[in-house]
Amino acid sequence: MTLRLYGFWRSIASFRVRVALKLKELPFQEIPVDILSGDQFCSDYDAVNAERVVPTLVHGEHRLFQSLAIIEYLDDLKAEPRLLPSDPADRAYARSLALVTVADAHPLVTPRVRNHLIRMLGANAKSVEDWAGHWTIEGLATYERLLDRRPPAPFALGQQVGLADICLAGQIVGARFLKLDLTPFPRVAGLADQCFAMPAFATSHPFEQPGYKTTAAS
Amino acid sequence: MTLRLYGFWRSIASFRVRVALKLKELPFQEIPVDILSGDQFCSDYDAVNAERVVPTLVHGEHRLFQSLAIIEYLDDLKAEPRLLPSDPADRAYARSLALVTVADAHPLVTPRVRNHLIRMLGANAKSVEDWAGHWTIEGLATYERLLDRRPPAPFALGQQVGLADICLAGQIVGARFLKLDLTPFPRVAGLADQCFAMPAFATSHPFEQPGYKTTAAS
Repeated sequence: MTLRLYGFWRSIASFRVRVALKLKELPFQEIPVDILSGDQFCSDYDAVNAERVVPTLVHGEHRLFQSLAIIEYLDDLKAEPRLLPSDPADRAYARSLALVTVADAHPLVTPRVRNHLIRMLGANAKSVEDWAGHWTIEGLATYERLLDRRPPAPFALGQQVGLADICLAGQIVGARFLKLDLTPFPRVAGLADQCFAMPAFATSHPFEQPGYKTTAAS
Repeated sequence: MTLRLYGFWRSIASFRVRVALKLKELPFQEIPVDILSGDQFCSDYDAVNAERVVPTLVHGEHRLFQSLAIIEYLDDLKAEPRLLPSDPADRAYARSLALVTVADAHPLVTPRVRNHLIRMLGANAKSVEDWAGHWTIEGLATYERLLDRRPPAPFALGQQVGLADICLAGQIVGARFLKLDLTPFPRVAGLADQCFAMPAFATSHPFEQPGYKTTAAS
């Protein structure tokens, strides 16, 4: 059964799911939804996902949304390689690390939030960039403190790359969009380097997607 | 083994975990961390949770953080009553519903964000209230659209109350803090009413916590 991923080249949540699909070696077709142009609000897409966000993964009759829920579903769909550890405490820690960016850092820098700052609070481009930088650095600093207490070996949960590494790599993608200095976050940057040495991560990067290449060429 | 919950009366993430512990009938001791006064940044608490947020659940040597990860851990710790369904697609849907507030609506209205709007963008009290209202209504509207497509029966996933209902009830707690009109969201409000008819929800409400009663009396 073909998996279809509604995503967007620049979306970090789409990046996370793309990596998970590739680590699992699950073939999928990606359908772009231009969230910068507001295509997620069109009725066609609303019929796919009533939350009107990307990504959505379509698997047969199931339409799955929210990157974390999709990745957990993929772990149920195909057991190997496991993206979540089997030990309950380790599994909780993997989810906690994921949620540092999914629930705390990343929601604050999405296009809808940046647009709202401009429209409702009269923020200018510089303020919006400072805002995004502030919350992205907060997320990086949190990760650095956490990795200091439990150093990667070599991945966040040990030998096996998984959910936590995917989410942390996404935070680094966001930091690089903003050209932030990663020197204060050596453990985070080192872990991300290890991830991006793997084809599943490297080929999932926003700048490797057809949508980016079209945008950059235009 | 005693479970200890570091939480705060007003914290909606602490509310979620409190409900889950009570639905599971797991006894716990709650230790207040006053996040409005910044106690989460003290070194004592940083030693407990390097993310410096509430809640944290301490279970023996394990220190669990992020409400969603904690609730999943509780489902591993004590199987009944199950808070996540056993069918993979339903489990994904439960997590997606949870993440609508955990990852999209609620992160935008936390104290650290409201404080940052004031400090960095010069927002006044009215702008901050409008901001919180906007994102809370966005979350409610998303839930209403989702529940329209799959109506509660009687809970979000069917007969069994669980993770999705807990998170949705937390969104309603936030809406009531802001005194928002719930008339446009009858399915969400109806589901929350069913939840708060249960003692696990009612006694977990922020206004039922000792910290609120002390604040209100002072």
